Amino acid sequence: MSQQIRTVAVIGCGVIGMSWACLFLAKGLKVIITDPVEGAEDRFRRYLDEAWPSIQLQLGSLQQEPAKNYEFVADIVPRLIEVDFIQENGPERVEFKQELFKTLDQHARPGVVIASSSSGLPSSAFIGQCEHEPGRILIGHPFNPPHLIPLVEVVPHAGTTPAIITTAMAFYRALGKRPVLIRKEVPGFVANRLQAAINAEAYSLISRGVISAEDLDTAVTSGPGLRWGVTGPIVTNALGGGGGADGFNTRLERLGPAIRGWEKDMLEHRFDWSEERLSLLKAEVGNYLTAVNWSELTRQRDSVLLQLLKSKPNL
Amino acid sequence: MSQQIRTVAVIGCGVIGMSWACLFLAKGLKVIITDPVEGAEDRFRRYLDEAWPSIQLQLGSLQQEPAKNYEFVADIVPRLIEVDFIQENGPERVEFKQELFKTLDQHARPGVVIASSSSGLPSSAFIGQCEHEPGRILIGHPFNPPHLIPLVEVVPHAGTTPAIITTAMAFYRALGKRPVLIRKEVPGFVANRLQAAINAEAYSLISRGVISAEDLDTAVTSGPGLRWGVTGPIVTNALGGGGGADGFNTRLERLGPAIRGWEKDMLEHRFDWSEERLSLLKAEVGNYLTAVNWSELTRQRDSVLLQLLKSKPNL
Repeated sequence: MSQQIRTVAVIGCGVIGMSWACLFLAKGLKVIITDPVEGAEDRFRRYLDEAWPSIQLQLGSLQQEPAKNYEFVADIVPRLIEVDFIQENGPERVEFKQELFKTLDQHARPGVVIASSSSGLPSSAFIGQCEHEPGRILIGHPFNPPHLIPLVEVVPHAGTTPAIITTAMAFYRALGKRPVLIRKEVPGFVANRLQAAINAEAYSLISRGVISAEDLDTAVTSGPGLRWGVTGPIVTNALGGGGGADGFNTRLERLGPAIRGWEKDMLEHRFDWSEERLSLLKAEVGNYLTAVNWSELTRQRDSVLLQLLKSKPNL
Repeated sequence: MSQQIRTVAVIGCGVIGMSWACLFLAKGLKVIITDPVEGAEDRFRRYLDEAWPSIQLQLGSLQQEPAKNYEFVADIVPRLIEVDFIQENGPERVEFKQELFKTLDQHARPGVVIASSSSGLPSSAFIGQCEHEPGRILIGHPFNPPHLIPLVEVVPHAGTTPAIITTAMAFYRALGKRPVLIRKEVPGFVANRLQAAINAEAYSLISRGVISAEDLDTAVTSGPGLRWGVTGPIVTNALGGGGGADGFNTRLERLGPAIRGWEKDMLEHRFDWSEERLSLLKAEVGNYLTAVNWSELTRQRDSVLLQLLKSKPNL
């Protein structure tokens, strides 16, 4: 049960692991961290100092000083006995994860959830050597940075037990996250597939010369993208059909034939990753991106993102 | 030149026409409106009264009382001599628009832009009978509601003159809109195609039972959708590759092979509009939408949207 989770192990403390650890600390948990990379602890301390103010802004009432309730350890194995939840963030290599999960499963207490941040590998790919309790392993895939973006994709493998799924969902929810349940392992899970869908059409339109890369971004940020932080594709469709439970079907009937026409054209011209189209795409994108003021852009993005998150606590 | 545009004709005053007219009025323009529907003028007055506070919120300093500088006319033809810009919002039927644009082109002053709000028909489909100046006709496709959402897709036909494109872009920009130029007529233009891309994958995942309709929406609104109001697909990709002008290519090289794998699976399972998948989709969506509190949702959406627009004046 998530109420009993007091101590979390963070296995692998790169960009994702550091952000998870910040969030766990901000929520008052004890965090035991391991990462073999030289200087990982120093890097984490700097990351925590920098991230703390934005976590404070988002969560409201936090102590001013970054939490200190964490510990870096060279070997996690002897410490797993203390741990109530494991969040793994190692490299996405099958052999590496097979070995690692075998060890984690062998030494974690019974019933402790072992969640992997893996964005690519489904857990069925690396539980083969787990002899104790493979049913407590699943994916808990966050969006970068996990301490700010609420989405967590929870992806069980076929043998993950329902109780473990419930515990993981409740734990992430208790952290203020918005976990969604992916019922079947599919490549890319859900959010990355939806991003891939829009990206593929974007690459197609730019490489066909239909629109400049800059205007393509504007077509999203000044148009449908404004809504997608508030209403997802399904509710947006329903509102386009006049709202209400019937709105979705109304829109589908009214626009269906037109949409199928667009889809046909999209399929015909889909981005095929050929050298020719890749170089057209990269040339158009290059023109645009060399003119971007990156530090100003990321500053504005972070500020808008924090305001947006604060303005929609219940959405 | 957009500086000389003082009087705008709004041809067709349904949902889109009403919203355009509100925006033109808020920007101090005189608006001459025609719509054959019984009660159109009363309906517009009510719409204007309701929309004015949110326009005020967005634009800052507006007079408290809704502008009165508009006129409904039964026949626009004798008034076209007064008009500096025409925004057409009639029904999307080819024969209807062919006839209408013939008349507008015949009576509008030389050099006056005739823009159609058409979301589906490209202007090449309905300029065939324009004998005077078809080169001043183009699409100016807004997003609903045009008085709030900045995006306008400007879509010339092959014969639209460069000067007219420049005038239309400058006029929309002067209204506070973010016009983008679609260089070639493609079905659905750009923003609707990008929406169709994400919708198609959403329908596929829901009808395959991979995710519930509610969780699908959350996967967008709590994940990538949070960013799309601020950074478009291209800049988001570049930031995912570490930012900077090289970030886009870095991401493409690092994730390209994985993305191609997702695309393969997406193509294999794409939503085919079969009765079977449609009914699975509708059943899942129905479960979700019957539980939505629509009035609360739209209130929250509008409030978040206004805050978001105010928080990113330069993005």
